[in-house]
Amino acid sequence: MLTNIYKTRIEWGDCDPAGIIFYPRYYDIFDIATTVMLERALGMKKIAYLKAYAFAGHPLVETRARFRLPTRYGDEVAVESAVTAAGRSSFSIEHRLSQGGTLCVEGFETRVWVAAHPDDPARMMSQPIPQAVVARLTHGSG
Amino acid sequence: MLTNIYKTRIEWGDCDPAGIIFYPRYYDIFDIATTVMLERALGMKKIAYLKAYAFAGHPLVETRARFRLPTRYGDEVAVESAVTAAGRSSFSIEHRLSQGGTLCVEGFETRVWVAAHPDDPARMMSQPIPQAVVARLTHGSG
Amino acid sequence: MLTNIYKTRIEWGDCDPAGIIFYPRYYDIFDIATTVMLERALGMKKIAYLKAYAFAGHPLVETRARFRLPTRYGDEVAVESAVTAAGRSSFSIEHRLSQGGTLCVEGFETRVWVAAHPDDPARMMSQPIPQAVVARLTHGSG
Amino acid sequence: MLTNIYKTRIEWGDCDPAGIIFYPRYYDIFDIATTVMLERALGMKKIAYLKAYAFAGHPLVETRARFRLPTRYGDEVAVESAVTAAGRSSFSIEHRLSQGGTLCVEGFETRVWVAAHPDDPARMMSQPIPQAVVARLTHGSG
Repeated sequence: MLTNIYKTRIEWGDCDPAGIIFYPRYYDIFDIATTVMLERALGMKKIAYLKAYAFAGHPLVETRARFRLPTRYGDEVAVESAVTAAGRSSFSIEHRLSQGGTLCVEGFETRVWVAAHPDDPARMMSQPIPQAVVARLTHGSG
Repeated sequence: MLTNIYKTRIEWGDCDPAGIIFYPRYYDIFDIATTVMLERALGMKKIAYLKAYAFAGHPLVETRARFRLPTRYGDEVAVESAVTAAGRSSFSIEHRLSQGGTLCVEGFETRVWVAAHPDDPARMMSQPIPQAVVARLTHGSG
Repeated sequence: MLTNIYKTRIEWGDCDPAGIIFYPRYYDIFDIATTVMLERALGMKKIAYLKAYAFAGHPLVETRARFRLPTRYGDEVAVESAVTAAGRSSFSIEHRLSQGGTLCVEGFETRVWVAAHPDDPARMMSQPIPQAVVARLTHGSG
Repeated sequence: MLTNIYKTRIEWGDCDPAGIIFYPRYYDIFDIATTVMLERALGMKKIAYLKAYAFAGHPLVETRARFRLPTRYGDEVAVESAVTAAGRSSFSIEHRLSQGGTLCVEGFETRVWVAAHPDDPARMMSQPIPQAVVARLTHGSG
């Protein structure tokens, strides 16, 4: 399965008056980690792969996170991401965010491949993930 | 159990290039919904109740959300929140975000009551939720 | 000239480890204040007025803010907004954010009316503000 | 004077339904750029330099930005930052954010050096910038 490591830093503006990261920011980080992993697998940036595969995005069906240890501004963190399942129109990803080798947060997400509805571009409908993409998700980027 | 309704609006800056809310913003909304519910139950603002009960906050142990229907900028939404469990040092909350009576997102969170560690204020440690607070969480605000 | 008052609350997640609002959040608030003022003036939500006037938005050319007094989580604030100039394709707005009648922040913004470039929808080009809109900006909403 | 270059990437979640960056995110980026520059000048992370110099932060007195060209998700940008003035208790910084060598945004900020008020830790008061810090701000990091 596809895996990737994304490194970032927790910043002052990500943290709350308790001095630790405000937890929704982890989901911001996980979203970037997923984007970066897919960009590497598909060999192009998101702005390009949305066009290349004529789809409208891969919004979330479900997300979950377990917070084991807090992080603080200035902390350098690494997110190990892995595709854990790839179905007909949905796929799942796990993220493990660690600092200095210690696991701090685990994230889980299930996404669906969507296109604009032909009758109403404002509506979205799930559609099959292209075979070429499934191959990249399940065999890693080669 | 304690319940509350928090109303807000999805804004332009909450939405992404797909034109729908960028999902981490739901967790921002749920965090406010929890704060507002606790403020009402405890009869004071968060900045006051952190002092009144001499604790450092109620950070998350686990969060989860199911996204059923997208919301867009300008959408007026209501979040129905309810305490679903209150243990010795942790408590759980469910949020149901709806628009026009239609359920769009469900959120689940487990929080822990923490204080600064006496030996190191930068570290946090869980501690028992005060009985007066447990009473408010489990019987609603009177 | 058009004016409006928008009321909101500073939240825990808007504040940083110093316990005060992280200043970029003021620009988030000002953007909402502008949207709400324009929605009231034009009699429809932003998602509708973008379509009604066939334009792509009113991005910023310049912004500025003076921070006089900090605000904290739980603070109820009011933003008084006013259109201060409306030219051929740009317009200016001032915001005065106060708490309990005391001015905390002044914001200034100049925006331009843009449409997608006919040769390349990804590019934007300024265009004249429709006369009906200029009338609403300069005479207030009636 | 002190200068620095900070590189980052505009992400999907930074962009709005127009497909370009939601402009308050530039101020988030500028805040990080300032932090990174000061960390390099002072030889320690912000969490350490706040303690080392016993102060409460360097909040903004005024900010300003001119937006010349939009950026989009996936854009790799560089922020050139420079201290432009360092007075008794305040200092000014300019940021030039560019993509591929083309200037997109200019940012200007004036910050004040503050400490907690001795009579009320929740209040802040400006105080002289330590001479060692002024030296680093005005002569660059050595």
